[in-house]
Amino acid sequence: MKDGIPLEIDVVEASASKIGSVDFDNLIFGNIFTDHMMVCDYVNGEWQAPSIQPYGPIQLEPSAKVFHYGQAIFEGMKAFKDDEDQVWLFRPEANFERFNRSSKRLAIPEFPKDMFFEGLETLLNLDREWIKKGFGNSLYIRPFVIATEPGVSASPSKTYKFMIICSPAKAYYSGEVRVVFAEKFSRAADGGVGYAKAAGNYGAQFYPTNLAKEEGFQQIVWTDANTHEYLEEAGTMNIFFRVGNKLITAPTSDRILDGVTRKSVITLAEEFNIPVEVRRVKVQEIVEAAEKGELKEIFGAGTAATINPVKGFGHAGKKFELPEQEDSYASFFKSKLMAIQYNKTEDKFGWRYAVKER
Amino acid sequence: MKDGIPLEIDVVEASASKIGSVDFDNLIFGNIFTDHMMVCDYVNGEWQAPSIQPYGPIQLEPSAKVFHYGQAIFEGMKAFKDDEDQVWLFRPEANFERFNRSSKRLAIPEFPKDMFFEGLETLLNLDREWIKKGFGNSLYIRPFVIATEPGVSASPSKTYKFMIICSPAKAYYSGEVRVVFAEKFSRAADGGVGYAKAAGNYGAQFYPTNLAKEEGFQQIVWTDANTHEYLEEAGTMNIFFRVGNKLITAPTSDRILDGVTRKSVITLAEEFNIPVEVRRVKVQEIVEAAEKGELKEIFGAGTAATINPVKGFGHAGKKFELPEQEDSYASFFKSKLMAIQYNKTEDKFGWRYAVKER
Repeated sequence: MKDGIPLEIDVVEASASKIGSVDFDNLIFGNIFTDHMMVCDYVNGEWQAPSIQPYGPIQLEPSAKVFHYGQAIFEGMKAFKDDEDQVWLFRPEANFERFNRSSKRLAIPEFPKDMFFEGLETLLNLDREWIKKGFGNSLYIRPFVIATEPGVSASPSKTYKFMIICSPAKAYYSGEVRVVFAEKFSRAADGGVGYAKAAGNYGAQFYPTNLAKEEGFQQIVWTDANTHEYLEEAGTMNIFFRVGNKLITAPTSDRILDGVTRKSVITLAEEFNIPVEVRRVKVQEIVEAAEKGELKEIFGAGTAATINPVKGFGHAGKKFELPEQEDSYASFFKSKLMAIQYNKTEDKFGWRYAVKER
Repeated sequence: MKDGIPLEIDVVEASASKIGSVDFDNLIFGNIFTDHMMVCDYVNGEWQAPSIQPYGPIQLEPSAKVFHYGQAIFEGMKAFKDDEDQVWLFRPEANFERFNRSSKRLAIPEFPKDMFFEGLETLLNLDREWIKKGFGNSLYIRPFVIATEPGVSASPSKTYKFMIICSPAKAYYSGEVRVVFAEKFSRAADGGVGYAKAAGNYGAQFYPTNLAKEEGFQQIVWTDANTHEYLEEAGTMNIFFRVGNKLITAPTSDRILDGVTRKSVITLAEEFNIPVEVRRVKVQEIVEAAEKGELKEIFGAGTAATINPVKGFGHAGKKFELPEQEDSYASFFKSKLMAIQYNKTEDKFGWRYAVKER
């Protein structure tokens, strides 16, 4: 809507759907894309009219700034389908607001909210057959923006391309997840871009994560770059620790992503009287709790991973396994979140967003 | 060369040259590209045969990892032409080695040295008319590599594209340069990717640099993220301070780029008995030296910028102007470097690299 008038979204439909060739029971995360994508270009100081087009490759100059200067940000969202074929989003305004916070930090022009939602909903309606019913099925939505101006001088681009692409999803991590606490490498600096979903934050983690994998860990829990004494986030997830019956997670900062799943878990914990502490988490405290048998659980929280239990962790050359929990918080929060996401329960906090049919 | 046999580089020549349309007296840095580019793809765990193609756009999936995860690195080099039409590179092995150090940190497969030099020299020979004689004229060379695998899961790409594109160059900064010392924002963390020419390092600087520009500064001198008490580098240049007759610059670290121009300046200073200290540089020390009138010069050193004098600096809301120097170190090092680069003097350190005609 712009001034009360529905936005015109130019739609070019795909001549044929690829959906018949997709094995929805054996999806690899983020590997297959739906029939359409949303595209919007920033030219002459303005976001132009958005369009929906058949999913396909894009053409850029080899000197496009995204290739050289990583001026790019993204978001991750999910759509869910309930038993009545209604499609729901989960707290999409939170993702949209973070999209623009990330853009601002990367000197990318903010994207208009009306275009974002009109485009996204038009796209989801076109590709609604790709959203499968049933717990665990979802459509992963990837809005992103890249700097397209040709030129190898290190200054902000004058042109950008905004896109939304969508991928049918099941689990993010297919196997068990063990993590290692970072002792040498770092993800983010104070005063840096750690709080933004800046493209460069992710590529920078690949090498240390490869080293961690060689040691049997799937992910790194990043610590503060100054001292490596405090646990921060896991790069693709925020991280929660359960010591006794208490849940502990680090506060957001300019180094830590303000995760939508993270804040939803905190709200649910408060609702269900689970003691939750949002404060700096000492590595030493968690190691000691593990040694005393007081560390009951670690789990990650993120849109792609939802709630992901962590089976064990490593620190300073030692490995710790976590016990199976009968009354697992991870399972509890996951089922509570999914009940809301799949419209199986009351939406007390107004987190569900109905995608209107059109 | 591979096992003594010259590498076959497949060359597709451009049907027509754009060179006639270029105003070589009024170049904007990094804005215009030569007729050809080098391309090499990494597929099936191997770098494939490189080729030289007409300069033009490339096509990628919108899910290509470079767009989402910033898995991309680059280098900057220059070619110079002497009065006898011989083309020279300046310490290209140092750039090549750093290219692979950057690649390693970003989990990108290292590029073979023989392919790099065979491809680069073939390209320079094809586009040698674009390299103009005369002090200040050069061809800026941009080797880079981007992650091309489609897929929105945060893990290293299985496919990559290596390219070299070239742009005729004069000065990088067209006007006077004033810098501000960072007090809040940061460029790099300990244990991060600051020492690599990772794409994301550059986009992350655009927003703080925009804020600095609003205050009248063209560049930021980054300080350590922990305390903001030590001066590190300027993002596109390493930075030197002259206090009295002493030259001071920060040591390289995992936060600071190991600049080729930087280390050449240090070597030249030693040769010409200019006292040079490579050690941490306190903000307070430079501010005090400025207040006492002992701070004679600040200059940046980098391939694109060569030696760039800094006219003034800002810190904690105060602005300082630097005096004009009769015996400027910046001018001295610039002329010494250019004499070597343009083959006007003996090449005592073996820094010149002749591009063979073929």
